Amino acid sequence: MKRAIIVGVTALDKIETPFGSVQNVLGGSATYAALASSIFSKTGIVAPAGEDLPEEHLELFSERGIDISGLERSGKAFRWEGFYEFDMNEAKTLRTELNNLSTFQANLPEDYKNAEYVFLGNIDPKLQLKVISQLRMPKFIAMDTMNFWIEHQKSDVLEAIKKVQLVVLNDGETRMLFETVNLTKAAKECLTLGPEAVIIKKGEHGALLYTKDKHFSAPGYPLEVIKDPTGCGDSFGGALIGYLASSNDSSDTAIRRAIVYGSAVASFTAEDFGTSRLRTLTREEVEKRFREFREMREF
Amino acid sequence: MKRAIIVGVTALDKIETPFGSVQNVLGGSATYAALASSIFSKTGIVAPAGEDLPEEHLELFSERGIDISGLERSGKAFRWEGFYEFDMNEAKTLRTELNNLSTFQANLPEDYKNAEYVFLGNIDPKLQLKVISQLRMPKFIAMDTMNFWIEHQKSDVLEAIKKVQLVVLNDGETRMLFETVNLTKAAKECLTLGPEAVIIKKGEHGALLYTKDKHFSAPGYPLEVIKDPTGCGDSFGGALIGYLASSNDSSDTAIRRAIVYGSAVASFTAEDFGTSRLRTLTREEVEKRFREFREMREF
Repeated sequence: MKRAIIVGVTALDKIETPFGSVQNVLGGSATYAALASSIFSKTGIVAPAGEDLPEEHLELFSERGIDISGLERSGKAFRWEGFYEFDMNEAKTLRTELNNLSTFQANLPEDYKNAEYVFLGNIDPKLQLKVISQLRMPKFIAMDTMNFWIEHQKSDVLEAIKKVQLVVLNDGETRMLFETVNLTKAAKECLTLGPEAVIIKKGEHGALLYTKDKHFSAPGYPLEVIKDPTGCGDSFGGALIGYLASSNDSSDTAIRRAIVYGSAVASFTAEDFGTSRLRTLTREEVEKRFREFREMREF
Repeated sequence: MKRAIIVGVTALDKIETPFGSVQNVLGGSATYAALASSIFSKTGIVAPAGEDLPEEHLELFSERGIDISGLERSGKAFRWEGFYEFDMNEAKTLRTELNNLSTFQANLPEDYKNAEYVFLGNIDPKLQLKVISQLRMPKFIAMDTMNFWIEHQKSDVLEAIKKVQLVVLNDGETRMLFETVNLTKAAKECLTLGPEAVIIKKGEHGALLYTKDKHFSAPGYPLEVIKDPTGCGDSFGGALIGYLASSNDSSDTAIRRAIVYGSAVASFTAEDFGTSRLRTLTREEVEKRFREFREMREF
């Protein structure tokens, strides 16, 4: 088993969905991804963490065995406020407070520099590049991003894509970045930039994997109630890198399994608000859902 | 091998997509479905067929071994004119000419009344009900519909649903009919009305099958170029009933396979305008794509 390193942000979120609302809850790309990764592997988190972040939040990381030596405690926590409309497809941002996110240095603790499995969660692509440059012997770097960076720093996003093994995007981001509605065309263009693999997350419709000569299509989990999709994409990425690190394998077969583990964990995330479901999620529960994924695609 | 009976319409279509346009081409729900079904099974078509329908169109049916004794030759052919925007997701109707569709009787030829496998393609639900009432020993009736009937004759659509074994809807129709965005919830509600199974077609995202206690998710085929999606849903339904009839099996396992055959045939349909690709499609080509579907599912 290898260690997984997660880079991203921690945040204090206010979320409203048709099923209720919460505020001042722990959020952020690195939070969801690290909690998900920790189900599979020893995990380290690299992220800004405001001095006003309640101590219980940091304790949660420790309870899940997550190493927090890469958290930069300073300033005021990044805050995000958003809501979902009835179709739950897209988070609408009402307000963000950058706070300490604007001064985050993304310096890796010395022993993280030898990490082999790294997930670059959604964060400024310049910081993703900075993290990459600090890694001495990366075996498998996966990166996520979001529409904001594609819109405002497209060349940085593309620069980072050239330096990673796996790109994880959602369908909207994929179409935006490669300027085509056809996901297959977009994925093939992405592969020409250098990565070995591209994953396109499609929410309830599952996820697609494209490699040079293979294609994999993972089903979505048929949830009857989606309470809060916040962090589903981050949980997906975290579980994915955690599983790959745990098996020390980044073959096509391993990535396919990692996608199903990612989908399974993400489906749990959506069942409750914020990180609530993820906090208590066990490997056994995930394995059970993994088997359900197998059954629902047999023919 | 059993015979498959296809009920629906024939039409003369004018289609425009970002990749070109065609006019006066053979179209209609029964046309696509019958051509697709004929790849697998002896097929009979029941539909109105205008006296102005060029003879070569009828010859096409005969070439594919389709029995046309159920075609009602009278009046002027139904005409449809539509276009697709860049995302190719939805046909926009520019114009329809009902013509002989308004007088179609849907009377089954005597020997069709003993048919066991029947696909009720998109047509007035009152006519679907009339066909059902003529069947003496149906084993498996599958029905399709469209937003127009859900909007204007919802109670007839629901009445038909109660009398069939399988309902085939697309995602938009499913949400509209059961007034929920959640497809799983909608499918479960549909099952309470009586059918053994519900299939939800999701275009590029594949298709879902819901039965009382099982769920199946079929992938979409990763086409790089979709020239014309017209008739994809009808081809899907036709291939599905054709495969079930050919294997004389309507078990959960058989329906799963039928969905993949349906998806495979529909993916070919989208590769060219109108019925062009479907006209020459062979069972061997379909089997090859079926195997690709298997490979893209494995983990």
